Amino acid sequence: MKSSVLPLFTKISKHIFLLKSIRNGSLSRIFHARQFSCRIICSRSSWIHQNSAGIYIHVSLPWHRATTTVASQRIGFTLKTHSCGELTSSHAGQSVVLRGFLQYQRMGRFAVLRDIMGKTQVLIREEDKELSVALEDTPFESYVEIRGVVHQRPEEQYNKDMTTGEIEVIADSYKVLSRVQRSLPFLIRNYNKPKENLRLQYRYLDLRHEELQRTLKLRSRVAKKMRDYLQDVEDFVEIATPTLSVNTPGGAQEFVVPSRHPGQFYSLVQSPQTYKQLAMIGGFEKYFQFAICYRDEGGKPDRQPEFMQVDLEMANVTMEEVQRLIENLLVYSWPSHLHPILTPFPVMTYDETLSEYGTDKPDVRFEWKIKEVTDVLQDCGANTLETLVLQPGNSAHAFVIPEGQIVMKKKLLSTWEALAMREFNLNGLTTSLVKEDKKLRGNIARHLKLTSQQTLIEKLNASSGDIIVLAVGPTINVQKLLGKLRLLSASAMEEAGRRVRDPDVFNFLWVINFPLFEVDETTGKTISVHHPFTLPKNGDEHFLHIDPLKAKSQHFDLVLNGSEIGGGSIRVHDPVMQRFIMENILGIDSKSLGFFTEALESGAPPHGGIALGYDRLMEKICGGKSIRDVIAFPKSMAGRCLMSGAPGNITEDELNLYHIHVKKS
Amino acid sequence: MKSSVLPLFTKISKHIFLLKSIRNGSLSRIFHARQFSCRIICSRSSWIHQNSAGIYIHVSLPWHRATTTVASQRIGFTLKTHSCGELTSSHAGQSVVLRGFLQYQRMGRFAVLRDIMGKTQVLIREEDKELSVALEDTPFESYVEIRGVVHQRPEEQYNKDMTTGEIEVIADSYKVLSRVQRSLPFLIRNYNKPKENLRLQYRYLDLRHEELQRTLKLRSRVAKKMRDYLQDVEDFVEIATPTLSVNTPGGAQEFVVPSRHPGQFYSLVQSPQTYKQLAMIGGFEKYFQFAICYRDEGGKPDRQPEFMQVDLEMANVTMEEVQRLIENLLVYSWPSHLHPILTPFPVMTYDETLSEYGTDKPDVRFEWKIKEVTDVLQDCGANTLETLVLQPGNSAHAFVIPEGQIVMKKKLLSTWEALAMREFNLNGLTTSLVKEDKKLRGNIARHLKLTSQQTLIEKLNASSGDIIVLAVGPTINVQKLLGKLRLLSASAMEEAGRRVRDPDVFNFLWVINFPLFEVDETTGKTISVHHPFTLPKNGDEHFLHIDPLKAKSQHFDLVLNGSEIGGGSIRVHDPVMQRFIMENILGIDSKSLGFFTEALESGAPPHGGIALGYDRLMEKICGGKSIRDVIAFPKSMAGRCLMSGAPGNITEDELNLYHIHVKKS
Repeated sequence: MKSSVLPLFTKISKHIFLLKSIRNGSLSRIFHARQFSCRIICSRSSWIHQNSAGIYIHVSLPWHRATTTVASQRIGFTLKTHSCGELTSSHAGQSVVLRGFLQYQRMGRFAVLRDIMGKTQVLIREEDKELSVALEDTPFESYVEIRGVVHQRPEEQYNKDMTTGEIEVIADSYKVLSRVQRSLPFLIRNYNKPKENLRLQYRYLDLRHEELQRTLKLRSRVAKKMRDYLQDVEDFVEIATPTLSVNTPGGAQEFVVPSRHPGQFYSLVQSPQTYKQLAMIGGFEKYFQFAICYRDEGGKPDRQPEFMQVDLEMANVTMEEVQRLIENLLVYSWPSHLHPILTPFPVMTYDETLSEYGTDKPDVRFEWKIKEVTDVLQDCGANTLETLVLQPGNSAHAFVIPEGQIVMKKKLLSTWEALAMREFNLNGLTTSLVKEDKKLRGNIARHLKLTSQQTLIEKLNASSGDIIVLAVGPTINVQKLLGKLRLLSASAMEEAGRRVRDPDVFNFLWVINFPLFEVDETTGKTISVHHPFTLPKNGDEHFLHIDPLKAKSQHFDLVLNGSEIGGGSIRVHDPVMQRFIMENILGIDSKSLGFFTEALESGAPPHGGIALGYDRLMEKICGGKSIRDVIAFPKSMAGRCLMSGAPGNITEDELNLYHIHVKKS
Repeated sequence: MKSSVLPLFTKISKHIFLLKSIRNGSLSRIFHARQFSCRIICSRSSWIHQNSAGIYIHVSLPWHRATTTVASQRIGFTLKTHSCGELTSSHAGQSVVLRGFLQYQRMGRFAVLRDIMGKTQVLIREEDKELSVALEDTPFESYVEIRGVVHQRPEEQYNKDMTTGEIEVIADSYKVLSRVQRSLPFLIRNYNKPKENLRLQYRYLDLRHEELQRTLKLRSRVAKKMRDYLQDVEDFVEIATPTLSVNTPGGAQEFVVPSRHPGQFYSLVQSPQTYKQLAMIGGFEKYFQFAICYRDEGGKPDRQPEFMQVDLEMANVTMEEVQRLIENLLVYSWPSHLHPILTPFPVMTYDETLSEYGTDKPDVRFEWKIKEVTDVLQDCGANTLETLVLQPGNSAHAFVIPEGQIVMKKKLLSTWEALAMREFNLNGLTTSLVKEDKKLRGNIARHLKLTSQQTLIEKLNASSGDIIVLAVGPTINVQKLLGKLRLLSASAMEEAGRRVRDPDVFNFLWVINFPLFEVDETTGKTISVHHPFTLPKNGDEHFLHIDPLKAKSQHFDLVLNGSEIGGGSIRVHDPVMQRFIMENILGIDSKSLGFFTEALESGAPPHGGIALGYDRLMEKICGGKSIRDVIAFPKSMAGRCLMSGAPGNITEDELNLYHIHVKKS
């Protein structure tokens, strides 16, 4: 970047100013920056005039604001002139000052400097022995400064892999600004990345990897575009809500923070749910926030104790309007280098997702839908299956793995059988190969009548070489088992080299019509499927009083490629209904939320909203393997920061200040 | 707002599209929204063509992206057609649906609806008895819906105080969407505001006040413009850093968060200082974040346990570059309705601020500078003063309150004397009135030689009717006392009706050249004036080894109208210096920061940055009396949320989960 701390202005006439020491590139940035207190009347391609004195620009009055504004557009670094990613042959002959990490050096003569913008090759002249010795003596990853002249390489020596591959800088001076003073645990290379724990322990080094830099830049950029949409286009108001809050009944385990008031603790918010609803009651019609949320999940894989939500709420909206808003938000902020997304997103009901995909967050990038085959098995000749399928509450379902014979080994099957038993208490799982003669081969298939075999093959539209995965048992267990096996078999096929899911495609999906309540398996109590503030589906309100478990909700999930990345709903705004749900259906002690139902009694606008998991969304966008890949300083699975050692010990004084003891184990 | 969920497109030719059901206003918004994946080639004033069919716009290819982008610009609310602040006589005759709080009703015939955009008057026809009864039966602040027709008022009945004062809506239907079901503690009026504690307890009602809505909207808007500047113009990368961190030695008291690991606690970060420096070491050259920070200040007035900082850091910068950046940031994001700010901001050294204003955060909106008058008193005839001023380390300083005689009552003086004694252990305070004959009147003045009186008057450039406030004692105490009295007397003059400080003016100031270390008065230990990561001033490095207290720092404060709203510095990037400062000068146990000095050993770019207190800045911008006035859900001074009751009790299970007991008092 060229130094242009405060460009100099000269007034030429009322509306024309001469702008010195600013490059065309910077001015185009200025022009494209949006919010001026004055307007610059020129387009990128047609400056009013440009000569060696500078660029003449035409601005509207008042001129002092124009100069202030334009002058304020860009701060350069005076300590260097360019980044390591921008020099091309057009800079040949220029004197430059570069600063960067020493990526590499050879024989004290060739060096590669790296910064966040790219890499530049530096050459030390053979006669500059002193520089050469200094370079050779510098450990990799030290931070160094080169002053020198840009030199165009002969065309046949262009390095096409570097954006700066047309040039090299011939050094006149070389200075180590910050020498690496110990043996680094790893160097910054794009191959042979170290294990994750080592990378987390030395995260500041890991952050130098190009991939992580690109990811965090993109994370910042997408968030910015989301704000542009929400604030500039849709007039949302960003409201910061407290994170030090009060314990909310139900929901995830919340971290607690002891206060100076003995025995009294803050809870770190698991989401701004209550506050955003209070903002609606307070008359804000469009609220949003990139909210930090906290959940103590006690070491669940791929969760973080703190995470970020794009949290929003609107008064006077329908489910569909919130969905359209989110679609527009995503289209608006979608990185242009990615496969575009199509709107409106498809919608499925909860029941459909379960019966077709065996999960409420289906990966719809590939078909392999689950189908019910109960009728086929009811009179199939295989006694065990017939008996099983005829038991009340049981049914049979199946899906097809196209060309599945390439992965369907005995070992895989026994793993699946174990899984079926362990997680779903099911022993009615069978896999069969479809043979060329339209017959099935497999442990159970051979007991099936030939006609049943053919009906099954036809019903599932299977071909020779395909594998049919079939399970019998209690419906919901069968569906969920097959949903899981569908994903496992897709992975198996992909490992065997078949393309099942397109990793470049982003298939969003809305899932609606969730039940409002469910029965907690361990306690037998009725609990909310999502949270107690969700409104029943229109027309289902009466179920609250007669059979709550039958009520569907106005909740909707946003699913992307098999991951839930957001959940929203229209909320209860009627204090009587809210209290009824909490006290009579959920049996929640609503005392701690008394202030909230009181707020609902104060004239609450109808409202609804949604929260997107920003870490998860960015993980998908960046193709990461875990949300840790899109977080600058993540915790390990056990909730530890391997770099700083958090959590750690605190002093006796602090324990006293907060009136707590640590329990002896 | 008109409903325009997805405007319809018709392709007219390759580059021309007909855009239906979108109003000119929305399209101009669309055009002004910046980031398109395609460009719309038309300017606000010259659409390609507009007729009753819609607006013809000209877009660049690819057209499907154009349509997606433009179509995605605006979500309307289908449940209402307009806000309560937008109807004018141009809407006369239109059918509208409004939703808002019932601000007021009279006789069941006249009602005022209020939402975040404004107010609209509604009229119920005399013959619509049913509506009338329903309206009369509705408590104020209930949330209601009106369907009706806009009716232009006769011009003589225009209500100039309302933006919608040209019209009223004649209701066809009236519906209470959410009835107020209890006696509200207060109504939403711009006069007679309730006491703060009541407002905090019912913050959701308080938020309905126009002033608080305007404040929070502005807070959101200014933050957005800051992001526009930092991200779009300056290429900063927003990086979220953890709030659950490890205890940092020194600094403010940090909240602790017990973990599931017995005896191990997270600390809530008091600032992202360590992390942002690690981001620099990780190769990010421009980092920023609107960071939530936590400090347990134990009930200091006008502090909050959690607050927001505009936190930024840059590699390879000088102090002056950071200052220019902040000036540009503020100019760029400064609300246009306020008095503009002038850049560059003036700079004063720490020593100058102390000697001229008696504080390191001077309010420079008014003069009343403090001057040293030691020489005048050394031979002034008043024995007590002479003795006092001649003691080693002592000196005499004074400032003038122009026309101060109108406030200088005996009672005020005795309050000041008490303050001088209590806070600064000083008894050498005197106030004297300048009389017309160039003589002084006052308890001590009368002992002064006449020539000394005149010298004093001339030196201070005082006039008849002015008050001279003079103090003698240890220099620093005298300066600080006078600094405090200068502000108290300004307030006293303002209460007496004189204009001393212009409340509309924003005087920013940089303060530089702070000492790097100071001696803690209670422990006698050397401590950092700001924090241990601050670099000494160029040329002062040797003082670290020979006399650390003599070293000045590369720290700079940003002061606005007498409040410190930001502090920045160039940081130590040399691990040897950093360790020396921590271990040899500060005697900090650097073990817990071992990972940080290790990071500095890994090739750390030179870097510096700043953090602005966003709450404090917004308080100044909005003219609030406390930062609570610019925070949606603030805590009380005792750190309590008067609305939710946080902090509160937690369960025995939670105490067990986190391995803690509460101490019995």
